[in-house]
Amino acid sequence: MNLEALRDRNPDHWMKAAAIRALTLDAVAGANSGHSGMPMGMADVATVLFEKHLKFDAANPNWPDRDRFILSAGHGSMLLYSLLHLTGYAQMPIEEIKNFRQWGARTAGHPEYGHAEGIETTTGPLGQGIANSVGFALAEEILRARYGKKIVDHFTYVIAGDGCLMEGVSQEAIALAGRQKLSKLIVFWDNNNITIDGEVSIADKTDQIDRFRASGWSVFDCDGHDPEDIDRAIDAAKKSTKPSMIACKTHIALGSAAQDTAKGHGALTDPQVVADTKAAYGWKYGPYEVPANIKSQWEEIGRKGAGAQEEWCARFAGLSVTKQAEFTRILGRDLPKKLPAAIKALKRQYVESKPKVATRKASEMALEVINEIMPETVGGSADLTGSNNTKTADLGIHDIDNRNGRYIHYGIREHGMAAAMNGMALHGGIRPYGGTFMCFTDYARPAMRLSALMGIPVTYVMTHDSIGLGEDGPTHQPVEHLAMLRATPNSLTFRPADATETAEAWEVALEQKSKPSVLALSRQGVPAVRKDYKTKNLVAQGAYVLAEAEGKRQAILIATGTEVSVALEARDILQAEGIGTRVVSMPCMELFEQQPETYRRRVLPAGPVRVAIEAGVRQGWDQWLLGERGKSGKAAFVGMDGFGASAPAEVLYEQFGITAQATAAKVRELLGSK
Amino acid sequence: MNLEALRDRNPDHWMKAAAIRALTLDAVAGANSGHSGMPMGMADVATVLFEKHLKFDAANPNWPDRDRFILSAGHGSMLLYSLLHLTGYAQMPIEEIKNFRQWGARTAGHPEYGHAEGIETTTGPLGQGIANSVGFALAEEILRARYGKKIVDHFTYVIAGDGCLMEGVSQEAIALAGRQKLSKLIVFWDNNNITIDGEVSIADKTDQIDRFRASGWSVFDCDGHDPEDIDRAIDAAKKSTKPSMIACKTHIALGSAAQDTAKGHGALTDPQVVADTKAAYGWKYGPYEVPANIKSQWEEIGRKGAGAQEEWCARFAGLSVTKQAEFTRILGRDLPKKLPAAIKALKRQYVESKPKVATRKASEMALEVINEIMPETVGGSADLTGSNNTKTADLGIHDIDNRNGRYIHYGIREHGMAAAMNGMALHGGIRPYGGTFMCFTDYARPAMRLSALMGIPVTYVMTHDSIGLGEDGPTHQPVEHLAMLRATPNSLTFRPADATETAEAWEVALEQKSKPSVLALSRQGVPAVRKDYKTKNLVAQGAYVLAEAEGKRQAILIATGTEVSVALEARDILQAEGIGTRVVSMPCMELFEQQPETYRRRVLPAGPVRVAIEAGVRQGWDQWLLGERGKSGKAAFVGMDGFGASAPAEVLYEQFGITAQATAAKVRELLGSK
Repeated sequence: MNLEALRDRNPDHWMKAAAIRALTLDAVAGANSGHSGMPMGMADVATVLFEKHLKFDAANPNWPDRDRFILSAGHGSMLLYSLLHLTGYAQMPIEEIKNFRQWGARTAGHPEYGHAEGIETTTGPLGQGIANSVGFALAEEILRARYGKKIVDHFTYVIAGDGCLMEGVSQEAIALAGRQKLSKLIVFWDNNNITIDGEVSIADKTDQIDRFRASGWSVFDCDGHDPEDIDRAIDAAKKSTKPSMIACKTHIALGSAAQDTAKGHGALTDPQVVADTKAAYGWKYGPYEVPANIKSQWEEIGRKGAGAQEEWCARFAGLSVTKQAEFTRILGRDLPKKLPAAIKALKRQYVESKPKVATRKASEMALEVINEIMPETVGGSADLTGSNNTKTADLGIHDIDNRNGRYIHYGIREHGMAAAMNGMALHGGIRPYGGTFMCFTDYARPAMRLSALMGIPVTYVMTHDSIGLGEDGPTHQPVEHLAMLRATPNSLTFRPADATETAEAWEVALEQKSKPSVLALSRQGVPAVRKDYKTKNLVAQGAYVLAEAEGKRQAILIATGTEVSVALEARDILQAEGIGTRVVSMPCMELFEQQPETYRRRVLPAGPVRVAIEAGVRQGWDQWLLGERGKSGKAAFVGMDGFGASAPAEVLYEQFGITAQATAAKVRELLGSK
Repeated sequence: MNLEALRDRNPDHWMKAAAIRALTLDAVAGANSGHSGMPMGMADVATVLFEKHLKFDAANPNWPDRDRFILSAGHGSMLLYSLLHLTGYAQMPIEEIKNFRQWGARTAGHPEYGHAEGIETTTGPLGQGIANSVGFALAEEILRARYGKKIVDHFTYVIAGDGCLMEGVSQEAIALAGRQKLSKLIVFWDNNNITIDGEVSIADKTDQIDRFRASGWSVFDCDGHDPEDIDRAIDAAKKSTKPSMIACKTHIALGSAAQDTAKGHGALTDPQVVADTKAAYGWKYGPYEVPANIKSQWEEIGRKGAGAQEEWCARFAGLSVTKQAEFTRILGRDLPKKLPAAIKALKRQYVESKPKVATRKASEMALEVINEIMPETVGGSADLTGSNNTKTADLGIHDIDNRNGRYIHYGIREHGMAAAMNGMALHGGIRPYGGTFMCFTDYARPAMRLSALMGIPVTYVMTHDSIGLGEDGPTHQPVEHLAMLRATPNSLTFRPADATETAEAWEVALEQKSKPSVLALSRQGVPAVRKDYKTKNLVAQGAYVLAEAEGKRQAILIATGTEVSVALEARDILQAEGIGTRVVSMPCMELFEQQPETYRRRVLPAGPVRVAIEAGVRQGWDQWLLGERGKSGKAAFVGMDGFGASAPAEVLYEQFGITAQATAAKVRELLGSK
């Protein structure tokens, strides 16, 4: 590359972009780790985007109608941090850049949502950002339809690398965005032809232009180092009626000795390389130094949206008081005041009707109430609508001609669905939930982890939660999945036992502002186990005494979901034999763990033998069987110790020994009275 | 559809295909569950494939050079079962068809590998079969290069549906196959335009033809109900120098009232519908009845490869004795006799050199020995070769011009890599291993579960196994992953502590014939903890006493991987204070669990307080802390209780309190002597 020619063509632009490149070199050298090449390669594109197109106001980073900028290629985090610093975000002073990748800094190795304003999502695991962006763009469409173009009208811009495009989830995202014609989604492909192992061609020869076109995208290209060409491409993309991909031909690690090589992908830390590269840029300043004239140009860019932001505030003030309040409420993730009473009314009704339904059906019954009260819910399923019971009567199908539709046909794309839901929750104003078979949490897993890591309230409706799925067999029967979900920090896994617990679980899930929830729901019908009306949400306590022992308390049965009724049956058998047996329903281990010790001891007192019953693996149960004063060690587990099988559900329960009889036998054995 | 016209055009073909359709209707009706539509739609394609093209011999189902038939759309299992029954596979008598989806039957809801010969892989989770098939085709290329075209020369045929093609993993598979020009891979796309939720277009408008072409495939199409057109398309595909996709225009649930509808996807069980549909086919026979003339035509198809099979045996007998023995050995998943001695020699060497290396580096050192002795290993990485240390010096890069290459650049495709490895292991003759960062087991998870469910010896080399990864931050730091892996039945998770344990872990992993293994390996260097040479493979016992207490044994520290050296340091501190402390290294919980109780008690005797140290979540540890006679409850855990952070590794260990000092403090606290 002839850097001088580039510089001479547009010196103002060049120096602004050079500031990004120099900060990147300094920060990576300072941290002695990181990724220099991508920010150095994409600095021109980002500069043009921020200067000429991105609608934002650095002084009001949370302005709801800002354009969103998603750095899908998250390893290039210094690109984002540089931009936030240069444009004057208060939370990104130069000290943060100097602390890149250090303990307590906002500038983590990869962008972490919540660390600093301006970081719209956590990226790093490749493909997630581009898949989130579909959710951002969907949220924009839905809210625009609801609140009007004067309140919601912005673009979602994404920078994606070759890694993002090789990950399968990108295909799910691309196809979904193309199908939904998300015309305000614009993806820049950093076409630098390099990955960690070498040139892209060692692993991929896909024609990305054709691939995007095949899924209904507009495709543009540009010289990623020519500001005018970049500007032209963005202008064209903004006019498209389809989502747009702009292929940006760039040079990774531009201007360094490692330019256009895999070495350039990683950390350039050699002082000589850093010095030579800066010299090649014509950058004569010390480490972390940005001269005042360049910084002030960048700060002007950071302020350029201020007027638009003020005009937006005026327009917002012109909305009806009700609309304003609603908009503020949903952006704040607050629940409508009506919800608690509606859930209570439902519970009261169940005490009367004692519905014997599958908990997936109970979930639908709860959603019928919730979706009517909460205009911010957006449901969907990965092509299992009738099985997941995720669609309620009043949710229209979201489509090009019905942007008010709040139900999304995600297609057979669990991963893309989960990532899109993350995007909607991050955008704000939407409470997304989506369903698939619980076994296929496996497919959605990378995005589900990010829901937890980011701390965002996405609700996963995972039905067919055990061998109770029956004939579809072991490929479709979760066995280890409850343990896996519970092992994940900062998330709640609910396995409600009946319609009442399901309604309560939904209420608790919706109350969360900073945690995702998984509802593990049954295929098969269950009897109502909660006979009396309780005002209190018992699921919120994680576990509670469902049936007390009669006579001397000799045994405690702890169960979740469909196995709670098995426990009650076992209790009947044991009580008939004079063995006082308490049944504890434990719909959410994580919440029970958070209860005061006094409450936990009251639910699980020392003394009686303990048997847990759950049609999954034992892992995670020892805490309640052997810990929590269960130190007698007189404990057993009734569940699965391997994969399932294909047969009718009731046969499987019998064959795998998850029955009231087997449970009662365990208790007798532990009591030494078999 | 005018079924009569179809029948009249080719009555022989029609009746053979009708037999598949009728058996499907009967079996689904009998089970009162299942998927009728796909077998009914694809019966013509399958009939032509089996009759005119598929090289197989029903009497010798495991003939190594058979063509492979992969039913990626696994819900259409009755298509496969019908074909196996009709062509005369011994393990698929009519009784199995009658027992479809029942306890103990070979005919599970979805095809399960190992249930019956002729089921080449387990499918049902969508996209897995097509992604497996890339591994099958790669294995064929590699073995053909090694043993010659006379011994290995077959096609891999796949039937994939819209669900398979919507799943992101299919893109990873398609791109990898296109890049590797796997010309003997032929995929039939069942283009029926229907998914569970409705028409494909509600969720997808991707032009699949363009999409496959963009990744370097040949694309053909055919009328999926016209046998001549199908035959022509297959002929053309077989001649292509690229992988081929044949778009088969079909009608789901052909001839039934539910034809071309989402209802037709599922179970057609209504007796009238079944009767009417059979009548429309001109099928006049009772349930499960196939008239002799049709059955005998099918059986002839089942025998048509017998001659080729015999000729193959003759050619095989012509190989050198050494080659024959090797081929037989690798197909039998037997280890070369030299391996144990070579591992022992390596261990002996380590006792001398006491290498202080990261266990990922130790894995490479073991692989240098293994790969030289085992020509059947095929390594690779999802674009992290230098970080995963998966490439040894003698492995050439597999490529179009180097089919002898045993190292595969999978690209940034963890899921596709895992599924391809499953395919290679299933094909036979290959022992695949592949690497990525352990955090990204999340991406590979659906295929990893299938390795375990199928019971096949794939080895996952998962490096950067904790917060020890450092600055890349929480998105890249596994915390819950050890628990998740250990929760998965029928798999082994190893976390070796040093070079010696890593060599032993590799040996145990390779000894497995029916289980996958995960090696969780460190980024950071560790000291040698095994000082003395032991002939015995101690890792094979799962856990063992690494350092005995001096004086009265008051505490047992249990640790894995990089935390074993932390435990040894803590022991030094405690012993200096007169607290007798044993250190147990536990590189594989699953194997320890399988040891006799006497051994387990010897390693973890009752009495001393117990502290486990692992830089992950506690879940899974209570079994060893509170169970196994640890009933005093005097136990504690030193590890993580949330996500990690971005900072240098040593800072993170300090900040999260995973240190020798913190461990010693826990012991003192438990002993009441703080």
